[in-house]
Amino acid sequence: MTTPAVPVWEIKAKGWNDDTLAKIPQDWLSPNDESLRDDVSGIVTNSELLTRREHEIVECDATALRDALSSRTYTAVEVTTAYAKAAAVAHQATNCLMDFFYDDALKRAQWLDEEFERTGRPVGVLHGVPISIKDPFAVAHKNSTAGFVSWIGERIPDEDGTVPAILRAAGAVFIVKTMTPQAIMMIETESAFGITVNPHNRNLTAGGSTGGEGALIAAGGSVLGVGTDIGGSIRAPSACNGIFGFKPTAERIPNGFTNPVEGNEAILSATGPLARSARDLELFITTVLAAKPWTFDCSAARMPWRPNEVEWLGGLRPRIGVLWHDGIVQLHPPMARALKTAVDKLKDAGYEVVDYKPYRVEDAWDILAKLFFTDGGKAVKAAVETSGEPLFKGVEMLIDISKDLTATELWQLVNRRNALRNDYARHWSESKVDVLLCPPAVGPAQVCGTTKYFTYTGIWNVLDYPAAIFPTGLRVEPTDRPVKRTEFLGPQDKDLWATYDSPDTFANAPLSLQIVGPRWEDEKVVQALHIISKVVRF
Amino acid sequence: MTTPAVPVWEIKAKGWNDDTLAKIPQDWLSPNDESLRDDVSGIVTNSELLTRREHEIVECDATALRDALSSRTYTAVEVTTAYAKAAAVAHQATNCLMDFFYDDALKRAQWLDEEFERTGRPVGVLHGVPISIKDPFAVAHKNSTAGFVSWIGERIPDEDGTVPAILRAAGAVFIVKTMTPQAIMMIETESAFGITVNPHNRNLTAGGSTGGEGALIAAGGSVLGVGTDIGGSIRAPSACNGIFGFKPTAERIPNGFTNPVEGNEAILSATGPLARSARDLELFITTVLAAKPWTFDCSAARMPWRPNEVEWLGGLRPRIGVLWHDGIVQLHPPMARALKTAVDKLKDAGYEVVDYKPYRVEDAWDILAKLFFTDGGKAVKAAVETSGEPLFKGVEMLIDISKDLTATELWQLVNRRNALRNDYARHWSESKVDVLLCPPAVGPAQVCGTTKYFTYTGIWNVLDYPAAIFPTGLRVEPTDRPVKRTEFLGPQDKDLWATYDSPDTFANAPLSLQIVGPRWEDEKVVQALHIISKVVRF
Repeated sequence: MTTPAVPVWEIKAKGWNDDTLAKIPQDWLSPNDESLRDDVSGIVTNSELLTRREHEIVECDATALRDALSSRTYTAVEVTTAYAKAAAVAHQATNCLMDFFYDDALKRAQWLDEEFERTGRPVGVLHGVPISIKDPFAVAHKNSTAGFVSWIGERIPDEDGTVPAILRAAGAVFIVKTMTPQAIMMIETESAFGITVNPHNRNLTAGGSTGGEGALIAAGGSVLGVGTDIGGSIRAPSACNGIFGFKPTAERIPNGFTNPVEGNEAILSATGPLARSARDLELFITTVLAAKPWTFDCSAARMPWRPNEVEWLGGLRPRIGVLWHDGIVQLHPPMARALKTAVDKLKDAGYEVVDYKPYRVEDAWDILAKLFFTDGGKAVKAAVETSGEPLFKGVEMLIDISKDLTATELWQLVNRRNALRNDYARHWSESKVDVLLCPPAVGPAQVCGTTKYFTYTGIWNVLDYPAAIFPTGLRVEPTDRPVKRTEFLGPQDKDLWATYDSPDTFANAPLSLQIVGPRWEDEKVVQALHIISKVVRF
Repeated sequence: MTTPAVPVWEIKAKGWNDDTLAKIPQDWLSPNDESLRDDVSGIVTNSELLTRREHEIVECDATALRDALSSRTYTAVEVTTAYAKAAAVAHQATNCLMDFFYDDALKRAQWLDEEFERTGRPVGVLHGVPISIKDPFAVAHKNSTAGFVSWIGERIPDEDGTVPAILRAAGAVFIVKTMTPQAIMMIETESAFGITVNPHNRNLTAGGSTGGEGALIAAGGSVLGVGTDIGGSIRAPSACNGIFGFKPTAERIPNGFTNPVEGNEAILSATGPLARSARDLELFITTVLAAKPWTFDCSAARMPWRPNEVEWLGGLRPRIGVLWHDGIVQLHPPMARALKTAVDKLKDAGYEVVDYKPYRVEDAWDILAKLFFTDGGKAVKAAVETSGEPLFKGVEMLIDISKDLTATELWQLVNRRNALRNDYARHWSESKVDVLLCPPAVGPAQVCGTTKYFTYTGIWNVLDYPAAIFPTGLRVEPTDRPVKRTEFLGPQDKDLWATYDSPDTFANAPLSLQIVGPRWEDEKVVQALHIISKVVRF
């Protein structure tokens, strides 16, 4: 009898993962610890691998770290080492890294320190700040796999792509690339390279497709990360892991990265930051836009960051709409509680909060789902067939909805999308709100492999509205008991209601909320985020 | 023997044209005048149909007219009547109108006058200014044919489209819609509805596809018109007819209109003005952008008009690049003379003018030509088949280059386009110029039916760079003799050189130039236009 041969793709994926681990210094590796708890969110904070000074460093947000680096409180080498350790620790508990290049980072940090010494000033506004980067972004000489085994070694750029190049020129240090799901196209993070789990509860998903960033940052292994969002891919991981995230209007930040649907401009992926504070999101945006990317990258519109031009309908303060549910699926008890609590706090603080009516949600989802793979998934299938790796369920679901379109069919979809955008703009305008406070999903992070419904984030992609995520500070509590309902908004509501079986399943999961503003009004959303998150957070 | 039956499409087209003429008051119609000269550019100026006061009115540019209307020097009714007459006269000499609705316009003008009387102030910044509109724009209850007989009566909107609605809200009066070529997709203006000819020389084309506007405005039949440009469709008519025109960056002005490639966003048509002065172009832009179209029309980006933010590389004045030819086709003698004269004047006036190298022109044309009809012309063919009207040569040529693409093929083209844009941006940046002064075409307006090469305008569409046209004041002269050449840049150069047979063929044709700036930098181009056109014009 022969044992069945291990498929080549599995060997390659494991080989890749082993190589990543092998790049981590030997004494930073923990022995395989079966007792690793469900909640590993404190794993970096409690790690004895980091020195006291390194613990100080990883407690800063990016803005504070930047200030400390610019005033030479810390050196770039110190900060890089602290975060290399932190990332290594986080990875071993959550499987969040796709690559680890401490050696390069250290050389870079040494150069930064020398330059500072030589010139007497920081190299740029992010001097020495470590930034983690989602796998598909072009970082010079590093792999981009887009979650495909078959792309290993196939897409290694000679130069940084636009956003990494801008960040590097501003003084950032890249230590790691982070995990994405297969095809960068799932609302969880799963591929031949494994599953990225949620540090707050390792039975739950880290969300996707920027799940590696979500888990890494939430576990304390990075202070600022770069993601992409075409249906919720920045926001789901931010929400699931209880960190801050921002999906800009797609053309405000350059959006190029290696992916199997490059050239599909009917739905654009937005590039944006994930971080541990609202101000760090803005630090990312102002840094990128200060480089005037529109002068050399056609994916960005000429729109400098103009926060001073924000005007509130409500005069001195934003008028806030609240979406209690989207008309399709009711919120699960913990998410409903978080939203209610936030609204109460805002009202107590004197903010005008008005109910907002959902509009054309089913239509928006239908258009979005059809726009993801306008080639019917051909490119993804080709990538998968090369290596023999399986097509993962979440990707398959989206491909099943898709069709290999003719140009004429694509035009019709684009026209539907434009009509929706124009109709929706009228609805928004009639709603007379500055921003919308809404859930990022039906509930907290779901059990790995079970997330189905992401219209709460996806609608803002098809509309191309900027949207931010913030943690409320609340978590799922034992008192968030399932409730029996006999009436439902529809079959999806009924199906999803049943998935909230017990608060124990979701123990410790952070509860996050979403703030949305009209297309192009990214400054408005970020200002509202500063205001609202301060009022709401515990 | 039976005479061959006249085809139905021909009867319908003639019927439409006859109806348009029938809407013109009887006593404004000239008897069919066989002695009508080649040069009818003075036909309105010399017309006895207009009163002395009406002649005063039609001599103003739009800005002056707006001022006179706002100060009640003229009433809206007076101005409307003057321009209705002028348009009727221009149409009979050039075949530039697609529709004529003086009745509606007069009612509207009466209302405007009454409102002014009632409120003591103008209805808006364009109070009473007559604006002519290219056929495909949605004007409530009016036909849009896109140059197809088969679309007569098929596309009559209940409401104004975005740009007409904004202009109307600002107080504009619509009297006419103007002629386009079949499918709005030729660099001349020819369809079943006839040929629009150049008022300076009726053997020459008015250019296309906004040829109706070009001829109408140049003949004095309109003061300000609205066009679209996907390969030169505003600029060719502006250049051919010796007026001002501006093709903005596509997403700066809302671009929706009825056309057979709606939903093809791989190459966007830009909406822009044609006028008799540079300041009128800016009047149009500032009026449209003041309405914040991005808040309700997804085809416009959030970019208010910010002329005060323009910065010149050259310090206080623009540094001007000059493109002597595009590397593919040399300029014909009159155009070369016009460019040389303009450069000399600019240098004499102390401007820094540097040679600019052409870059990737063949590639740009190849991409552009493939992007026009990504359905391989299916929609156009369907429109033509419905009525049996012929497919005109200029459209057929573009369809022949096209292919009915799959989504995957379209993605590849989009990727090529984006790579070109990014490479070109580097080239532009390395050229260190603020704006480029270049020809709008190889020569002046061509003999009707012979225009072939429009890469001098088209390249700025595939790059999406804003570009303006201004008349130099020069015209083709008897001294612009053809020159024998034995060496050519390539076969296209040789072919086109032969088409310049004699200055007599092009007698009286205006010579215009083009000013181009980087994508999104529309303010820069318009400011340079003010400066350069003042220095250059005679």
